[in-house]
Amino acid sequence: MSEHELFQTPWNFLGLPEDVSEPARARGWLLPIPYESTTSYGAGTREGPAAILAASRQVELFDREFGNEPAMDYGIHTTLPLNLVHSSPEAMIRAVENAVAELLSSAQRPEVLGVLGGEHSISAGVVRGLVRAQNADSLVVVHVDAHADLREEYEGSPYSHACAAKRIQEVCPIFQIGIRNYSSEESVFMRRSRHIHTVFSEEAVDSKGGFLRDLAQFVKNKRVFFTLDLDGLDPSIMPAVGTPEPGGISWERMLEIARTVCTNAAHVPVFDVVELAPLPGFRAPDFLAAKLVYKLFSYTLARRGITTKRRRSRNG
Amino acid sequence: MSEHELFQTPWNFLGLPEDVSEPARARGWLLPIPYESTTSYGAGTREGPAAILAASRQVELFDREFGNEPAMDYGIHTTLPLNLVHSSPEAMIRAVENAVAELLSSAQRPEVLGVLGGEHSISAGVVRGLVRAQNADSLVVVHVDAHADLREEYEGSPYSHACAAKRIQEVCPIFQIGIRNYSSEESVFMRRSRHIHTVFSEEAVDSKGGFLRDLAQFVKNKRVFFTLDLDGLDPSIMPAVGTPEPGGISWERMLEIARTVCTNAAHVPVFDVVELAPLPGFRAPDFLAAKLVYKLFSYTLARRGITTKRRRSRNG
Amino acid sequence: MSEHELFQTPWNFLGLPEDVSEPARARGWLLPIPYESTTSYGAGTREGPAAILAASRQVELFDREFGNEPAMDYGIHTTLPLNLVHSSPEAMIRAVENAVAELLSSAQRPEVLGVLGGEHSISAGVVRGLVRAQNADSLVVVHVDAHADLREEYEGSPYSHACAAKRIQEVCPIFQIGIRNYSSEESVFMRRSRHIHTVFSEEAVDSKGGFLRDLAQFVKNKRVFFTLDLDGLDPSIMPAVGTPEPGGISWERMLEIARTVCTNAAHVPVFDVVELAPLPGFRAPDFLAAKLVYKLFSYTLARRGITTKRRRSRNG
Amino acid sequence: MSEHELFQTPWNFLGLPEDVSEPARARGWLLPIPYESTTSYGAGTREGPAAILAASRQVELFDREFGNEPAMDYGIHTTLPLNLVHSSPEAMIRAVENAVAELLSSAQRPEVLGVLGGEHSISAGVVRGLVRAQNADSLVVVHVDAHADLREEYEGSPYSHACAAKRIQEVCPIFQIGIRNYSSEESVFMRRSRHIHTVFSEEAVDSKGGFLRDLAQFVKNKRVFFTLDLDGLDPSIMPAVGTPEPGGISWERMLEIARTVCTNAAHVPVFDVVELAPLPGFRAPDFLAAKLVYKLFSYTLARRGITTKRRRSRNG
Amino acid sequence: MSEHELFQTPWNFLGLPEDVSEPARARGWLLPIPYESTTSYGAGTREGPAAILAASRQVELFDREFGNEPAMDYGIHTTLPLNLVHSSPEAMIRAVENAVAELLSSAQRPEVLGVLGGEHSISAGVVRGLVRAQNADSLVVVHVDAHADLREEYEGSPYSHACAAKRIQEVCPIFQIGIRNYSSEESVFMRRSRHIHTVFSEEAVDSKGGFLRDLAQFVKNKRVFFTLDLDGLDPSIMPAVGTPEPGGISWERMLEIARTVCTNAAHVPVFDVVELAPLPGFRAPDFLAAKLVYKLFSYTLARRGITTKRRRSRNG
Amino acid sequence: MSEHELFQTPWNFLGLPEDVSEPARARGWLLPIPYESTTSYGAGTREGPAAILAASRQVELFDREFGNEPAMDYGIHTTLPLNLVHSSPEAMIRAVENAVAELLSSAQRPEVLGVLGGEHSISAGVVRGLVRAQNADSLVVVHVDAHADLREEYEGSPYSHACAAKRIQEVCPIFQIGIRNYSSEESVFMRRSRHIHTVFSEEAVDSKGGFLRDLAQFVKNKRVFFTLDLDGLDPSIMPAVGTPEPGGISWERMLEIARTVCTNAAHVPVFDVVELAPLPGFRAPDFLAAKLVYKLFSYTLARRGITTKRRRSRNG
Repeated sequence: MSEHELFQTPWNFLGLPEDVSEPARARGWLLPIPYESTTSYGAGTREGPAAILAASRQVELFDREFGNEPAMDYGIHTTLPLNLVHSSPEAMIRAVENAVAELLSSAQRPEVLGVLGGEHSISAGVVRGLVRAQNADSLVVVHVDAHADLREEYEGSPYSHACAAKRIQEVCPIFQIGIRNYSSEESVFMRRSRHIHTVFSEEAVDSKGGFLRDLAQFVKNKRVFFTLDLDGLDPSIMPAVGTPEPGGISWERMLEIARTVCTNAAHVPVFDVVELAPLPGFRAPDFLAAKLVYKLFSYTLARRGITTKRRRSRNG
Repeated sequence: MSEHELFQTPWNFLGLPEDVSEPARARGWLLPIPYESTTSYGAGTREGPAAILAASRQVELFDREFGNEPAMDYGIHTTLPLNLVHSSPEAMIRAVENAVAELLSSAQRPEVLGVLGGEHSISAGVVRGLVRAQNADSLVVVHVDAHADLREEYEGSPYSHACAAKRIQEVCPIFQIGIRNYSSEESVFMRRSRHIHTVFSEEAVDSKGGFLRDLAQFVKNKRVFFTLDLDGLDPSIMPAVGTPEPGGISWERMLEIARTVCTNAAHVPVFDVVELAPLPGFRAPDFLAAKLVYKLFSYTLARRGITTKRRRSRNG
Repeated sequence: MSEHELFQTPWNFLGLPEDVSEPARARGWLLPIPYESTTSYGAGTREGPAAILAASRQVELFDREFGNEPAMDYGIHTTLPLNLVHSSPEAMIRAVENAVAELLSSAQRPEVLGVLGGEHSISAGVVRGLVRAQNADSLVVVHVDAHADLREEYEGSPYSHACAAKRIQEVCPIFQIGIRNYSSEESVFMRRSRHIHTVFSEEAVDSKGGFLRDLAQFVKNKRVFFTLDLDGLDPSIMPAVGTPEPGGISWERMLEIARTVCTNAAHVPVFDVVELAPLPGFRAPDFLAAKLVYKLFSYTLARRGITTKRRRSRNG
Repeated sequence: MSEHELFQTPWNFLGLPEDVSEPARARGWLLPIPYESTTSYGAGTREGPAAILAASRQVELFDREFGNEPAMDYGIHTTLPLNLVHSSPEAMIRAVENAVAELLSSAQRPEVLGVLGGEHSISAGVVRGLVRAQNADSLVVVHVDAHADLREEYEGSPYSHACAAKRIQEVCPIFQIGIRNYSSEESVFMRRSRHIHTVFSEEAVDSKGGFLRDLAQFVKNKRVFFTLDLDGLDPSIMPAVGTPEPGGISWERMLEIARTVCTNAAHVPVFDVVELAPLPGFRAPDFLAAKLVYKLFSYTLARRGITTKRRRSRNG
Repeated sequence: MSEHELFQTPWNFLGLPEDVSEPARARGWLLPIPYESTTSYGAGTREGPAAILAASRQVELFDREFGNEPAMDYGIHTTLPLNLVHSSPEAMIRAVENAVAELLSSAQRPEVLGVLGGEHSISAGVVRGLVRAQNADSLVVVHVDAHADLREEYEGSPYSHACAAKRIQEVCPIFQIGIRNYSSEESVFMRRSRHIHTVFSEEAVDSKGGFLRDLAQFVKNKRVFFTLDLDGLDPSIMPAVGTPEPGGISWERMLEIARTVCTNAAHVPVFDVVELAPLPGFRAPDFLAAKLVYKLFSYTLARRGITTKRRRSRNG
Repeated sequence: MSEHELFQTPWNFLGLPEDVSEPARARGWLLPIPYESTTSYGAGTREGPAAILAASRQVELFDREFGNEPAMDYGIHTTLPLNLVHSSPEAMIRAVENAVAELLSSAQRPEVLGVLGGEHSISAGVVRGLVRAQNADSLVVVHVDAHADLREEYEGSPYSHACAAKRIQEVCPIFQIGIRNYSSEESVFMRRSRHIHTVFSEEAVDSKGGFLRDLAQFVKNKRVFFTLDLDGLDPSIMPAVGTPEPGGISWERMLEIARTVCTNAAHVPVFDVVELAPLPGFRAPDFLAAKLVYKLFSYTLARRGITTKRRRSRNG
């Protein structure tokens, strides 16, 4: 009996076999950052990456939208979780920046880097690392969230989860989708800033989806950092977040947004999916997040029509 | 360092600062009644008020619909929970009636009184207290629920949660929305009674919402007691109820109903939100209920266009 | 005081009184099969039947769609749970086949047999038992599921839950609804097989529901085995399954499908509802499953317009 | 295949076969009373009886202490749950009294009646029913609890769970074990009353167990009503109660107490086990309660040395 | 009806009436610090203070050890939770230091200040605040914990929860009890330091308790800061902590330790109880923590033999 | 920044660095077998291995009993989980046998192989694989359990979890500890068999531990397969099992047993720890199991007095 037959597939995203998950071969890399420090309510985002990895092993590799098992073609390498720094949120954001910059500028590097949070504050480090490794030319950010995250500072820190978008828009323009909660201060900032385009939740969930044209225009020929706070989704399908605001984005709309971004952008070198706070024993949200991460890799990396050999199965 | 800077805001609804939450200043008052006695299944409504208060502290004060922080203008005073009486459901309903009557007829009294249940049976006491403090002239009731609650008696008591609407319609006409469960007995009563207008769930969730015109007509120039059993909402967004009936009202429709009532009524002196039975560790329903209570206060008390100073932030 | 007044109704589906739940009288029988053996993830389907029975006792007997309490007319007998066999999945499937065949060919037998899973693999035994007791003439299967379940073998067994539909279509044609997950192997098989008609999830949830005409045609004058894997429903209303795939069927659509099948078929001698894996303390899915089972009995057995005497009440 | 082979054993306490669980044959009867109404904290005792029955099906029939399967000899009949009355706690206690009196005075009646709560207030009805059916001659009560339950009235009702022992000692002398919580009022009453013997928790858990001699003396040649509030046990083994007070009785000591009572008393015609509030998904307490109920039946009904035929097995 | 009769007691520790909980009157104050930032596993200590307050409302005021309701005599004032600072752990520890210093040096100040965590790192701030407000003369620390917490730095921060005791012993000598987990580095430090006396868990749980004499000696005539990490207790009674190490201290031993400290010390001006991470729906640990905090106040503040008027009752 | 500094330690047992966890270096190997198929109650053992691995990452490497970090000396290699076979329990047991035989007879093989269940039935395969790879000479089994597991067959399978010890004793003599539940059939078998030595729970928990001498004798100079069903432990510290029987073994006694076995045996080539069924969100049992596995490796592999360099820390 060979080792392959004896044991289950490795403990990585989607449970991919070694030949398509090793760094030299995989065009997509996934970096877990189980960081949680500034959250005030509904703790648990530090468990998010592990829950997404566990659920991903049940996700079917075959994707009907592509007619094959796209990950078997492009490959995904899952790194070990990033080491945490707890001297200050600023130091952690810097550590994220360093890690992302290093991963993206190594000789052996991914075409697309996915990042799993942890709390949203890490996104400020992600975008800075991206800019350092490459540059900020024609870089834009698409941001799905229930909250504007545009505070200058929160509970004493400019690197709080509540300031994520504020730090990001200092780097490049941002297109926010699904926003339904913000403060007076943020309200004023949104109206005045020219770096920010906001699609509020009513518009984001409208059945016609008129904003998708604006989104397509926004990302046209740009390099995009796609940052998804899962609380942008509707609590009926994503209750596993700190502050589950009613009136959010559906699964179908979320896929439309992702397709619009990935089809129209010049490239999506980095995306992150953050703020999953798993509910013990309640796995639907973990599973949805895992499918979403797979979709994001495929929208950016999959070649349609490629036939891959069958490999693995689901458990349903 | 001042006391204000040292400590968090008080433990009240929305975590409002003292100057807008003291009874002398607040135009809205909130009365928690953690009463549960006649429930047969899915216990836990006694934990409802505490869960709503806890979640409310995470609700953003700024409301996009009003363009400001409405509660900072009109103010909300949260009373201590009502003392419970367990000699009989009837005695408890009488205690509720007394409390509501006393609160509404004191020299210092709210313009709008919100009540948090607890099981639905308390609503019979609420409406009686309202009538005693003021009167029944031009009073009508709008009732959102999955169940008709029109039993004459249940498990030996005419003051069971299953008789709430029966007791209420003895006082004034009632408009029921979202009903999808009732007995033969109730079916006959609904058909025969002229005090009851029923919008069944199919009609209540219909995308056109034709019934909203009837509702507007029903409350026109009336004083309205608005009683919301949270199981009227769809279980996908409100699973934290005793009998979660599929096919209920969405968040958006719920807001439409509330706006229709509050815009067209002469006044909404009292509303209640009942039957939240919190699911330990699963907070989305608590959060939704807290937002809904805030919306109800604002629809009845907020002046649009008023600018309030920024005060507090969310945690998302 | 009579025994009747002293005690609650028996521990059976819907809590029906003895006179309508005894085998001699009841036209519908319900067979619980708490079998779980081949599941790899999200265990718990062995608790499914007990959870559905417990929840059913809270379901209101009166059904608005029929204007009466249909179960009081046609009657439902709940059998004890089937004994389990753990020598192999094949042996268990054979035990199911034997039990179903025996129940359906006894002198005293049901018009409609409902089966509660347990994992989906039991359905292969159910359909074989049906064919043995009656025959396969004009028999077709309607299958609601998120997964195609068309694997030839899974983890060494051709009787895994992942092979349920493969085993079924060896017996008669199958119409699959809501499918959104399958492997490359299954993809090829679906394209090639003439026994399989597949309605993928996008089509199944489409607001127009065009596929319902095809479904009506498919079952026209046929005898139908209706097999429902609850993960075919949307995770927002049915998170209590092993692999909750986003993008599933709504409650309203589920009822449309059931009505289409039962109205157009010559007969529905057997149905099963499988794969409920109850979430401790989270009862909305159990309740939905119980209502669905009641609806299925009523769609196949109820005579409209029959007035039954009032008997029992809900607890909401 | 016979019906016996086809199906699992009936849904009764211990899953006993019909021949030893029918009323005519069984010397022990078990009456579930899922009543909960006056509880203020940590709801859920209404789920207690169902949880104990479910867990009991996993309890091994063979008891090493007796060297056989005692229940197969003496037999246990499980009645349906008592109908609930919610007009007032007093009315419910009266209904319990009536039911117990009726069961104990029927021609066909148990030698030992076990009762499952539900909240502790039912015990007042149990003891009254016992006295009515038989009489109060030489009747004493042994009461295991963390709380004295000697309030005259609580939250307006003399039939609150907090008054259980006060109502009981009005009927006959009481021996309390494990008490570690009471009010000033109760403290005074305990000191003054000659009807009450109290063994506080320190003494109750002391390794020497000197109080057991007093207990033996107290029950000597008496008829005993044995009432067990499960919160008398230590929270490490019994966390599933409303107010889990640290410092309680161990499993081994609980059995010593039960043996002392049953060996020395003339008879134990009735016992109850109350206040289990099951923790969803956490079954150890349910299982312990089920084992304890079985032990109580066996200590009162089993003949040692009787060999019974093997019948059923556990699942561990 | 008076306000007193209408409403429940205030939302403070033990639910004390206003006259004994106002700052001017209360000799004990309780400061909640729901801070959690550096935890890596088993999040949730930010919910600890709220859970302890909620549970305390069910704790009986009467204490058998004192023969009265001690809190009604000495009084406890519960402050609002401390505002959080998330710029860095160091900044938060400084905020704790400032708050404690301010509270202890105000004109109106407590005799004994209890602090509720939150993670253990706050204790470094507590002891510094104490020293600043008073001084370090004859100050010693008694520390119950499973972990030595003697790291110089952890995950980049010297103010991590894993460094709590290291920071404390820089201020004054420390007596550690129940330790059963530490690193090589800490092992060396413990052996070499003359500031640290360690009672490992085997000795701490030994039935004879010989170490209690050493403890009495250690605190003799000293001012003591008593810091309790709840994971020092055995997981069978305290599973609600981040890393529940088997082999810990029992409830009875915990009380012996507390009595030894409070009886022998000159004064215990401050204590803290930290690291409760509540398990949703599982309340025994919250309840135990609440009782422990009450005991600590009473051991330091209660005058034995004082008779107080009866006031409130439990719910058991 | 090096890869080592950037990322957390690998996802293996204890989170050991690569240099001590690679197969060529590690003297202990750990094989996860997440198999669950024949369980009837309290499902979830398939999640056991993953929960133990996750918890082990929080276990402190330093062990006070050894005065160093023993795993850094002997090394542990964690294999991928074994592939599951679901054609029949017999086939799975054979797959386990094959895997164990293969691992133990490869050129590169462990000195000690630890196995993580999954359900207890796997132990039959483990002992067979051990015998095949080596032989049965002087092989004995020590078995900790609440249940005798000596059924010849259960639910149709001789490879059920309820038959584990029956299959094992066919291979070599067995010493059972902690037994407190078995059937009549097993009772007879135990009395008659000369292959079985049983220490019932009363004796096993007795404070004097006289049986430990017999145990030492039994294993003297033998090769021992040590099989631990976690339900042998007391439910107060190990509630996360299918049937938590009160009256089990304490943590301290468990360590005494393990030390007695490992000190006296000639060698312990294989041990398994089975039947953990994790309780979502309740981690104390997972953590205890992880510590126990570490202890077992150290008792068999650690050299006392060896000083290892400090490497990693806990999070408490």
